[in-house]
Amino acid sequence: MRVSEQLRQAVLEANLALAREGLARLTWGNVSALDRDSGLVVIKPSGVAYDRLKAEDLTVVALDGRTVEGRLRPSSDLPSHLELYRAWPQIGAVVHTHSVYATMFAQACRPIPCLGTTHADHFYGPVPVTRELTAVEIADRYEAHIGTCIVECFASHGLDPLRMPAVLAAMHGPFAWGSDASEAVHNAVALEATAQLALGTLQLAPEKQPIPACLHDKHFLRKHGAKAYYGQR
Amino acid sequence: MRVSEQLRQAVLEANLALAREGLARLTWGNVSALDRDSGLVVIKPSGVAYDRLKAEDLTVVALDGRTVEGRLRPSSDLPSHLELYRAWPQIGAVVHTHSVYATMFAQACRPIPCLGTTHADHFYGPVPVTRELTAVEIADRYEAHIGTCIVECFASHGLDPLRMPAVLAAMHGPFAWGSDASEAVHNAVALEATAQLALGTLQLAPEKQPIPACLHDKHFLRKHGAKAYYGQR
Amino acid sequence: MRVSEQLRQAVLEANLALAREGLARLTWGNVSALDRDSGLVVIKPSGVAYDRLKAEDLTVVALDGRTVEGRLRPSSDLPSHLELYRAWPQIGAVVHTHSVYATMFAQACRPIPCLGTTHADHFYGPVPVTRELTAVEIADRYEAHIGTCIVECFASHGLDPLRMPAVLAAMHGPFAWGSDASEAVHNAVALEATAQLALGTLQLAPEKQPIPACLHDKHFLRKHGAKAYYGQR
Amino acid sequence: MRVSEQLRQAVLEANLALAREGLARLTWGNVSALDRDSGLVVIKPSGVAYDRLKAEDLTVVALDGRTVEGRLRPSSDLPSHLELYRAWPQIGAVVHTHSVYATMFAQACRPIPCLGTTHADHFYGPVPVTRELTAVEIADRYEAHIGTCIVECFASHGLDPLRMPAVLAAMHGPFAWGSDASEAVHNAVALEATAQLALGTLQLAPEKQPIPACLHDKHFLRKHGAKAYYGQR
Repeated sequence: MRVSEQLRQAVLEANLALAREGLARLTWGNVSALDRDSGLVVIKPSGVAYDRLKAEDLTVVALDGRTVEGRLRPSSDLPSHLELYRAWPQIGAVVHTHSVYATMFAQACRPIPCLGTTHADHFYGPVPVTRELTAVEIADRYEAHIGTCIVECFASHGLDPLRMPAVLAAMHGPFAWGSDASEAVHNAVALEATAQLALGTLQLAPEKQPIPACLHDKHFLRKHGAKAYYGQR
Repeated sequence: MRVSEQLRQAVLEANLALAREGLARLTWGNVSALDRDSGLVVIKPSGVAYDRLKAEDLTVVALDGRTVEGRLRPSSDLPSHLELYRAWPQIGAVVHTHSVYATMFAQACRPIPCLGTTHADHFYGPVPVTRELTAVEIADRYEAHIGTCIVECFASHGLDPLRMPAVLAAMHGPFAWGSDASEAVHNAVALEATAQLALGTLQLAPEKQPIPACLHDKHFLRKHGAKAYYGQR
Repeated sequence: MRVSEQLRQAVLEANLALAREGLARLTWGNVSALDRDSGLVVIKPSGVAYDRLKAEDLTVVALDGRTVEGRLRPSSDLPSHLELYRAWPQIGAVVHTHSVYATMFAQACRPIPCLGTTHADHFYGPVPVTRELTAVEIADRYEAHIGTCIVECFASHGLDPLRMPAVLAAMHGPFAWGSDASEAVHNAVALEATAQLALGTLQLAPEKQPIPACLHDKHFLRKHGAKAYYGQR
Repeated sequence: MRVSEQLRQAVLEANLALAREGLARLTWGNVSALDRDSGLVVIKPSGVAYDRLKAEDLTVVALDGRTVEGRLRPSSDLPSHLELYRAWPQIGAVVHTHSVYATMFAQACRPIPCLGTTHADHFYGPVPVTRELTAVEIADRYEAHIGTCIVECFASHGLDPLRMPAVLAAMHGPFAWGSDASEAVHNAVALEATAQLALGTLQLAPEKQPIPACLHDKHFLRKHGAKAYYGQR
């Protein structure tokens, strides 16, 4: 069984978009996408620079982590991606970066409060931060535990990953996802912009409260609800 | 009745300028322009990326909002634009963005004080913030109420939209306008620069007072008054 | 009498460098240079965008302000430039911008303290801020008074314009200068970098004191003193 | 004895990378590399702009500072580089810049605390700041004393230069190094990103403590330890 050339191209393009959109310096970011039919995941290889990355360099793995295709090691963050795919059948792609502003919030262990409509257009509620991992979780299968910790965070807060398509891994950086690779990158860009706006807003008004629920709902639902009217049909 | 090819090109160019000038990421910004003779408005379609936008993609609508030309939905912000055109006969183009620094002030619900001559060259007084919309205004015809709320803000403050060609929609982001699309974008760029300067100035001098009225007048009037002497005749 | 084609090209190149180095948005910045033999000044025309500027667009004026060559109005800041040329025989070019970080300090009316060697490499002591202009000075011959106010500032502080090749015009923005147009732009770039570093340093250490005089001297003099050894002979 | 063309090209490319990665404006940055076999160091010439730099402009010097090849003066920072090569046999290249965020910390005389995994991936512990130089050290052989002061700092803190491949020279700016020129630039880029993230984190959480030692170890060792599994074999 093989992944389609189309999926491979989409994952390549999404990884290149990380560099182009300013979300990743050097090799610090990766995108994967899942083909639900075959259960195969295409992901960036570890430590390869974006300007040299080609479609044939991408690694293909099964959901249990076995490499199926490719001569390069997959991204070391692969186990985190796999935990999200296994827990959430509704997602088809995952992005991890150390993008500047989202990472500042992750390092500060502060959720990003919803301070404006740019946030509300994309994220339903404050973007959460995971709890700290234990020493045991760090020592063994660290990257898998990052993923399970994200899943646990969403379960404990009752969050729907399609309404909150991003999280801040504490002291680390953001993950985002979506139904496909392009949407996952879009959400990672929106997260970074949202974090930058929030930082400046808090500098101008340190005690600023989140926007009213009715405004938050309005913006999220005009883009994502059953009666969405943003964009083209 | 049709809009001229020239107006269509001007609106295309103005929308592309938003991306080029760093005012808009993804699809977050739009420019419209009005042909006062025909009463037709040309506006960016909703959710289309700047790098794929073509003149024939632009949507043409009447001032009552009916689509006259174009196969794509107009920007969802169209009703806000239309309220401004209906209230202010002196304007010919409207820009809406989520540009970074202006949006920080909008989210903080702080007017931008006039702290220097860059501000005074373009905006006569502090750039105002609209009041919060009510739950009723948000629930029904939300985007139109953003527009009426801007008009109400200017009426209550006795502001002339040509002397204050921008506003901050509370918890949302900036609108700017002008006699034509190019001037409206120019004002949106000036607003963003002004907001960035103000943020840094307030970090260096949190209690800084606005510049004296005589300096403010001098700068605004040398560019915009009856005896303006800035630029070419 | 005419200016050399070489001077004209140098002024064109210097004006284009303002945009390329990120010191000027839209039309907010200008460079002039003086030919001391003929007493003629070449300067950017007012309100012309950098991407359309050509050598033949530049305006040539005498030191008394009369236009000698060119069909376009000179920059409205010309009288400020002329005051500096008249007061300081040692300079050959002047730059005025609203570059972001230097303008923040100008708007805050705070001198830029010497907090590191980047500053000391270029500016001998804190970069001063001019006093506020009086209402009378603003009302009549405003731009000339900006220049005289700079000259007064340097006289009262006993500053040598070649050892302190920049100033912050209060509530306005920076001026820089040098022996020729290229050096003046170099100083404007150094000023902007210095201001950005100072802003961040003050955020990290609000009470930080200037660097010791011996370190300041060392850096300035290895580049500018009689025994300078930086760069090529 | 001559250096290989390959080393010369690597040093050229590394110097150009400083400008391309946004670490150096004007001429403010330099990279050198050492050929341990011949004991020859290739370094950028002093005060030459990156966009005009060619392989044949590079200067070749012996470890005692004598120029061996090249018609241009070496970077004035050469004596600092040489001290590091002489003290640390394990390094093969040195970078010095005034990159924005790292220089802010250097000017503030604050070590960069390890606030997240981006830091931990590259630097084992807080990035140290050197002590202030004495007036005597500044007066005579200043640049050499910068180097000896860095070596002293590492000795007194018991730091391994391969596990902490960067330092902040107090009131000055960063130095970074590595086994070759490419790795040294990589570390300089990582340092700048780390400093930017730390500044924002401290703005959001001024009292933020360093990440736990077990997380710090995990990240550093998965990239640099004996059992490293990041990147390709």
